[in-house]
Amino acid sequence: QWMMLEWKTKRPDMLSDMDPFGLGRIVEDGFIFRQNFSIRSYEIGADRTASVETLMNHLQETALNHVKNAGLLGDGFGSTPEMCKKNLFWVVTKMQVLVDRYPTWGDVVQVDTWVAASGKNGMRRDWLIRDWKTGEILTRASSNWVMMNKVTRRLSKIPDEVRAEIERYFVDTPPIIDDDNNKLPKLDENTADHVRDGLTPKWSDLDVNLHVNNVKYVGWILESAPQPVVENYELASITLEYRRECMKDSVLQSLTSMVGNDGGGGMADPHGVDCQHLLRLSGGGGEIVKGRTKWRPKYANRFRRSSS
Amino acid sequence: QWMMLEWKTKRPDMLSDMDPFGLGRIVEDGFIFRQNFSIRSYEIGADRTASVETLMNHLQETALNHVKNAGLLGDGFGSTPEMCKKNLFWVVTKMQVLVDRYPTWGDVVQVDTWVAASGKNGMRRDWLIRDWKTGEILTRASSNWVMMNKVTRRLSKIPDEVRAEIERYFVDTPPIIDDDNNKLPKLDENTADHVRDGLTPKWSDLDVNLHVNNVKYVGWILESAPQPVVENYELASITLEYRRECMKDSVLQSLTSMVGNDGGGGMADPHGVDCQHLLRLSGGGGEIVKGRTKWRPKYANRFRRSSS
Repeated sequence: QWMMLEWKTKRPDMLSDMDPFGLGRIVEDGFIFRQNFSIRSYEIGADRTASVETLMNHLQETALNHVKNAGLLGDGFGSTPEMCKKNLFWVVTKMQVLVDRYPTWGDVVQVDTWVAASGKNGMRRDWLIRDWKTGEILTRASSNWVMMNKVTRRLSKIPDEVRAEIERYFVDTPPIIDDDNNKLPKLDENTADHVRDGLTPKWSDLDVNLHVNNVKYVGWILESAPQPVVENYELASITLEYRRECMKDSVLQSLTSMVGNDGGGGMADPHGVDCQHLLRLSGGGGEIVKGRTKWRPKYANRFRRSSS
Repeated sequence: QWMMLEWKTKRPDMLSDMDPFGLGRIVEDGFIFRQNFSIRSYEIGADRTASVETLMNHLQETALNHVKNAGLLGDGFGSTPEMCKKNLFWVVTKMQVLVDRYPTWGDVVQVDTWVAASGKNGMRRDWLIRDWKTGEILTRASSNWVMMNKVTRRLSKIPDEVRAEIERYFVDTPPIIDDDNNKLPKLDENTADHVRDGLTPKWSDLDVNLHVNNVKYVGWILESAPQPVVENYELASITLEYRRECMKDSVLQSLTSMVGNDGGGGMADPHGVDCQHLLRLSGGGGEIVKGRTKWRPKYANRFRRSSS
C-alpha cells in the first residue's frame, strides 16, 4: 500500500497506468473497473492473433474483478452478499462482441467495464478494450444479465437489498453497441448448412459450479462454421443468446447456416459473410445458445488502415 | 525506461518485484528469466484451482519470453536467428511437471526459468513456480529439447553458430527434478483400462505452425483418465514423452491404464493412484505422446499443511 502511495506522490501522472500484477482497479470516480492484460503466446491461434475466446475470457475476468474490487463478492462467481443470502445468482442472457482488431502476442490491452440498469429487473454490463499503447479501440462488448433462484431455478426480480448494493455502481449511458435485435429464421437440421454432432464437455471445461463456462460455447459454435470461412475470414462480431445451461453429461449438436447477404435484414457486408448458429442438446433437444456471427476477409482491416 | 530508472534510485529493494505488465525480465546475472502471473478466473476449474494446463501454458510463455528478452527470437516460436537461417526449430522430447500445490484465482505466481546443456546436442529447460507472496514452491518442471530440420524432418546436431548464440545462457546445475526413467509396460487397446476414441483438434487448438500445441495433449490424455480418479484425486505429477507431431486432420485415441502400486517400480504412493497413458492416431496408428501421471487424494496437501 505504501508503495502505491509513494508512487502517487512522486509521479501522479503515472498512477493511472500502474497495476503491477494486472489485478486491475476502479477508476473514473468509482464507475469503471480497469484491468490490463498482456496477450500470451498460448492465447493466440493459427493467425498469430488473440482468439475471440481469449477476449471473452478477459471480459469475464474483469467483470468478476469489478465485483470483487467493489467489495461485493459474496461467493466465487459474482453473486453479491445479499444475493447469496437469497440464493440468487447472475445468469447471462445475451452477449454481443464487436472486434475491430485482434491483438497479438506481447500486446497489452486495457479493458474497461461498467454496469447499468437494463429494464426494471436486469443489468447491463459493457466493456471497451483498447490497445494500451496507442489507445486504439480494439473491441466493444455488451451483455445482459438477470437473477435466477438456485433452488426454484426461476428468474427473480432484483430484491431491494440487492439493488441497494449494486445501484450506486450503475452508470447512466446508452449501450456501447446497439442492440442487435434482428430476428433470424428458425434453424434446425433441415435448414442448417453444417452440423457437428456429439460435442461433449471435457472435465476442464467446467467451472466451479460444474457448469460449462459461457465462453466454451463459442468454441463449439465455431466448430460447425464452414472451414473455408474459418480459414479465410476473421470474426468481426458475435451475438449470443443464452437459453439454458449445459451440464457435464450433456451431448451437444452445433448447427450453422450461412445467411444470404441480400435477405439478412441489414446484415449486408459487401465482402463479408454472415452466419447463424444453434447449439442444442443432441437428438433435437433443448436450445442451449442461439448465435449469429459476421465475418470479414482476413487482413481486410490491416489493408484498410495502411492504405488510408 | 526513465520510469524504471527513477524507481530504482528511490527504492532499489522494490525493483526486483516490478514488472508492470507481467511481461517478465531477466534476473540473476542474466541466467534466469522471471515472470509473474496472476491466476485468472478462467484459468481455474471445478476445484477452484488452476489446471495443470494453465501451469503448462505459463511454462510455455516464460520459455518464449526468455528467448525474446535475450534478443534471440528469430521467429514467433523460439527459434534463434541462426536456427532460422538453417531451417531448424526446437522440438520438445520430454516434459516432467511436479505440482506441490495448485494456486487459485487471484494468486500471483512467480515463474523462474533457465536453460542448460543436455548431452551433446540437446538443451534442458527447467522451471520453478513459487507463490509470489510467500515464496512457497508450488511447481517444479523440467524439459528436454532437440533441433529438427524443417525440410528433412530429421534431428540435427546443434550447429556451432547456434551454440554460440545460446551457450552463454546455459547454467551448470543439475535438473530441478530427477529424470523419471521408469520403463512402462506396452499400452494398447488390449491392456488399457480406459479408451477414448475420435478426439479431433479444434481450429482453436492449433498454433501458428498449424500444429496442435503441446499443452493441448494434456487435456486429451486426461480425457481417458477414469472419472473417479479425476473427481477424487488431484494430479501430483505428469511425465510426457513426445513422439511425433499431431496435425489438424489427425484423429486421436487416448488410452489409460492404472498402474498397480506394488509393481510400479518405485511409483508406490500409499494413498495415491498411478496411471500410464498413450495418445496415438486412431486405428492403431503412430504414437503421439506417451505419459504417466501420479495422483493424490484431493486436499491431502492442505490437510498435511494445516496439521503440521
